[in-house]
Order: sequence, then C-alpha cells, then structure tokens
Amino acid sequence: MKTNLATKSITVNSQKKYQVVIGKGILDNIYHLTKDFLGEKVALVTDDIVDSLYSNKVINALESQGKAVFKLVIPNGEKSKNIDTLYKIVRFLAQNEFTRKDTIIALGGGVVGDISGFSASVYLRGINYIQVPTTLLAQIDSSVGGKTAIDIPEGKNLVGSFYQPSLVVVDIDTLSSLPNAVYLDGMGEGVKYALLDAKIFDIVNKKDFDILEFVYACIKYKADIVEMDEFESGQRKLLNLGHTIAHGIEKLSEFNISHGKAVSMGLKVICQTSFNRGLINQKEKDDILSMLDNTIGNIDCPFDLFDILKIALVDKKRKGNSITLVLIGGIGKPILKDLPVSELTEYFS
Amino acid sequence: MKTNLATKSITVNSQKKYQVVIGKGILDNIYHLTKDFLGEKVALVTDDIVDSLYSNKVINALESQGKAVFKLVIPNGEKSKNIDTLYKIVRFLAQNEFTRKDTIIALGGGVVGDISGFSASVYLRGINYIQVPTTLLAQIDSSVGGKTAIDIPEGKNLVGSFYQPSLVVVDIDTLSSLPNAVYLDGMGEGVKYALLDAKIFDIVNKKDFDILEFVYACIKYKADIVEMDEFESGQRKLLNLGHTIAHGIEKLSEFNISHGKAVSMGLKVICQTSFNRGLINQKEKDDILSMLDNTIGNIDCPFDLFDILKIALVDKKRKGNSITLVLIGGIGKPILKDLPVSELTEYFS
Repeated sequence: MKTNLATKSITVNSQKKYQVVIGKGILDNIYHLTKDFLGEKVALVTDDIVDSLYSNKVINALESQGKAVFKLVIPNGEKSKNIDTLYKIVRFLAQNEFTRKDTIIALGGGVVGDISGFSASVYLRGINYIQVPTTLLAQIDSSVGGKTAIDIPEGKNLVGSFYQPSLVVVDIDTLSSLPNAVYLDGMGEGVKYALLDAKIFDIVNKKDFDILEFVYACIKYKADIVEMDEFESGQRKLLNLGHTIAHGIEKLSEFNISHGKAVSMGLKVICQTSFNRGLINQKEKDDILSMLDNTIGNIDCPFDLFDILKIALVDKKRKGNSITLVLIGGIGKPILKDLPVSELTEYFS
Repeated sequence: MKTNLATKSITVNSQKKYQVVIGKGILDNIYHLTKDFLGEKVALVTDDIVDSLYSNKVINALESQGKAVFKLVIPNGEKSKNIDTLYKIVRFLAQNEFTRKDTIIALGGGVVGDISGFSASVYLRGINYIQVPTTLLAQIDSSVGGKTAIDIPEGKNLVGSFYQPSLVVVDIDTLSSLPNAVYLDGMGEGVKYALLDAKIFDIVNKKDFDILEFVYACIKYKADIVEMDEFESGQRKLLNLGHTIAHGIEKLSEFNISHGKAVSMGLKVICQTSFNRGLINQKEKDDILSMLDNTIGNIDCPFDLFDILKIALVDKKRKGNSITLVLIGGIGKPILKDLPVSELTEYFS
C-alpha cells in the first residue's frame, strides 16, 4: 500500500534511539510504519474501549502482510494498571511462545502504554514494544520517554522500569473519538508543557489552535528532556511540574479525580505559590490562570492543601530527606528547587 | 571495627561498574565493605534457612553503625521465585517508605539473589542492591552479571531484567554450612566453568583443591564474559553450556532435579554429542566424564533425550527459528553453534 499521508517525525536520542512518527490518519499505514520492528508474532495489547474502535484496523493491516497477531484486551481504566494485568500479559506471551524477536504493540491510552511497556521490559528480560497512543495524554506525555509502571496499593507507579519503545506512532485522528473529559485530561499535561515552554504557550493561545502542531511541539519538548536526562536524575524532573500536588489530590480523591485534572489543579497551586514567593508577577499569574480556565475550565481543588502536602511527603520522587519541587519563574522558565521535607508545608503557606 | 581479613576483589566492567569482594569470614566486616552503597534504610531479604544462620550477624553489624534494617524472610527454595514474592517485596519496601537512595541486601542463594535483584530493578524503577551469596552456585554464577528473574507457570526465568548489583560480597566461610546436596548443586555450574576455561579445569583437578582459588577463578571468568556481552547477544551465551538440556531435564522432573544437577547432566550430554560430532577426542571426553564423576558422582539422566529436546524447542533462549547450542571443541574451547530448530533432534542423534 502506498500512501501520501504527511507525517512528521521526531528522533528520541536516548541510549536506545527511536522515532516518534506523527500524522493524521496514519493508523491505516501501521504495517509500513512498524514493519522494521516486527518479528513473526505481534501481541496487540489494548483496552475494551479502544478495542472496539481501532483493533480491527491494526489487525487487518498486519495480518494481510503475513504477521501473526495475538490480541489481549484489558478493561479500560487505571484499575487495570496492576500486577495481575502484568502477570496476565507475560503469561499470554509465554503461552503463545513469544521469543526475543517478537513484539508488543500497545494500542490505547496511558494505562495500556505503561503496562505494555513494563511487560515488554521484563518478558524474557526485554522484548521490543511499539507505542500507539490514542489519547491526548498518552500522545503528548506517557508514550514517549520509556517510563513504564504499575500501581500497587501503597501508591501509583511505584513499580516499573525505564524502558524505551522501539517506535511511537501518533495518529492525531484517534483524538476525535475521545470523550470530552478524557480530552481535557490530556490538556492538563498540555498546559504543563505550555508553562515549561513559551513556544507551546503561544501555540495553545492561538485563535486557530492546531492540534497537530501542539502535539508535535509537546513531544519535541519531551524528547529533548529525555535526551538530556533519560533516568530522571536532573532536568527530567521539570516534567513533574504540578505532579507533587497532583499525586496528593489523586490519592485523596481515591483516584476519582483523573491524573490530568489533578495535574491542572497542581499547576494552579504551583502558579499561586510561585506568585506568593515573588517568582512571577501578577500578569504572568493571570495569563497562566486564564489558560487553565480557557482550556480546562473549573479546576478548583476540593482538598485542603495541608492534607495534600502530607501525602507528598511520602511521594516516591523524594530522595531521602529532601524533595524536589518544580516552581515557575515565568512562562517557559521552570525552576527546580530542593527543599528539606521539614520545610515543605511552610513553603506553601 | 578494623580488620586484617585478606580479601580479593574483581571489578565487573558492565555499563554500571562494580566490585566483587571475595574472602573468608568477611561477613563480620559487612558494614565496612558495603557502607558506600547504603542509604539510611536497608532491606535484608533472605530465606528461612539462611536467616537462622547469618541474619543476626548482618543486622548487628549494620544496626551498630546506625542503619535501619528491615528484614524480610521468604521460604527457602525455588517455589519462592514467583510473582507473589516479588509483590511481597516491593510492597514491603513501599510500606517502609524506601526511597531511591535506600538499598536491598540479598543474603542467600540463587533464589534470594534473583528475586531481590528483580525487585530492586523495578521498585521505583530501580534502587541499589547488594548480593551476599551464601551458596556455591550463587557465589560462582548467579550473583554476578545482573541477570534477575522470577519463574512463571510456563517456565523458569521467563520474566526478569538485566540489572547489575552495586556490590557483591562473597564469604567463602558460608559454604561450610551448606548441605552436601546443595554444595554439589553448585559444582554442576563449577564443572561448566572448568569446561569453558582450562585454567579452572586444572584448579578443579588439583590434589589440594582450594575453594577460594576456585570461586575467584569462576567469578573472574564470568566477569570477563559479562564485560564483553552484558545483554547476552553473543559471547555470554557460552555460559549456557549444558543449560538447554538442563532446562528440559528440570522441567521433565517437575523441578525435583535441582538446577546444578541438571546442568551436570546437560554437560554429560553435550560432552557425548561433541565427541560424536568429532569435536573432541576420546581422551578429552574421558577427562570430562571423570571430572563430572569425581566432583558430582552419579549423574545419569533419567529421561529420554528426545523428550528433553522437545522442551528445548520452546526454550526462551531461542530466537525465532534458530537455537544457539554451546558445544565443546576441547577443554576451554567452547563453540557456539546456531542450528535451525528443525535440525536440533537430528543433531543429537
């Protein structure tokens, strides 16, 4: 099949180098995009909602070219991101006699991507996987950079690996099938990128917002960060802007508040604190709050900041007795600040 | 505490560089040996048998220097090397609020080392771990090189990671507490090294066999191999000498035949096949069989070779449609041979 579909491509220069291919309607072309990374067998991991929308397209494309596709469908939602699903996936691979040459394709949102990536990193101590993110959040954030994880009862993402995909295929057209709430969830991470990078801030504020341009710019920003700091020892922590607060909110809500929504609430808190600490001026603060309001709408946090911070104190991002906060020193000017845990609550007061 | 204990040290130059420290009675000195790699908290993972022998020594040494030690004891034996134990360990770490700066010490044999290493590789996407192997098999083989794993119902070691320890501490004195069967189990891997390296062959054949010299030489051989090929894409496969057959035997015995014993049976089969194929002469064959007989005793395999090979065909070491065999072309002259799976059975006939 020949195609004239326009695609853009970003190279992620981590220890393992790989491409992120971005375009509209490119799922139709999935075989040609992925063929260099496929063994004889492909495990297509997806969730029940995405399955009904896009699985057949992928399976037909691959099977028509002689690949053996083994589909595994997990229930949609964060609750699937656990050790039982991990076990199910690796046993599925073993039962179908997958070898080190075979490949997983993760078709879906962040949950599917995280658990498929983690499974790929540990099955036979590592096989190839390809991310095909279908939500905004997964496209601009979780599918690139190789952070894989599952949740355990003690906390989210506490178990996982750094394991880069072989390829990421981003089809913007899949966003059209997203429920509004899921789209807005992604915009939480989207505004995070806008605060980290003034160019993205301008893209979001444009009258004729171009989603392809936006997704491309976010991934480019993330790829550059991952290239600098693959294993999150320094600069990569910038991507945690809003996340310390967000994790507390998610936990207090018993995960009824989605990740992206919690991130946008976290951004609002960080914006206010950065203003209180004299790091940004009134206009910058107003610009940020307007953007949050225009893109996401009402994001008032229903919890007490003190309770949120108590949870942050056991956050895994902590190293020993200090915690690294990401503050805002202006649009596109994030600041990493190491704070003794004993001073955290006071800092936000 | 000052010490005059003589230790030898080997550097493993993998992507992450680390030391293997070898000596007699050095467990008494564990704090000074490990202190550069310890955070505030130490998780001591061990099994119930080793616990009763050596845990107190380690705990006292560390606690007297102000470390907080959290002990987790798992049941002795291969049956513990499963996903439930993995889950137990990572939750134990989370419940005790371990951060990325804290450390796991794996005190025990191969099972404890493999599961602790795997847990360390995935908790918070990777924390430090220190191997303190107490069996011969773990000392000369599994504690060095960073291969971690658990078993799943479909096969042994099918899920795991390549994740190097921060340090390996080998105290030869712990071998004195080993039951004879467990010691012989280690000698199965020991004879493997003797066939891979003529120097080790001579050490094993010496009248006054020096266990320290032997353990040191095996680890040195393994360290050199790991340095050349950390992720087992080539030379490291030499360490699988005897293992394709061994895995089949273990499986057919429903794991009632131990790994080391199965390896020694595998070595005998490979020796015979290498002779049949004209790769070694009668004297070489006799020398190898005498060594197996002298060190391990009766190792006649109770299963049909054809049945063993059928299992080898689904062995995870296989890549697509070929299988890499390790044959013997003389003492210290292993040969890697790629064989189409369709020719495997005929090759051994």
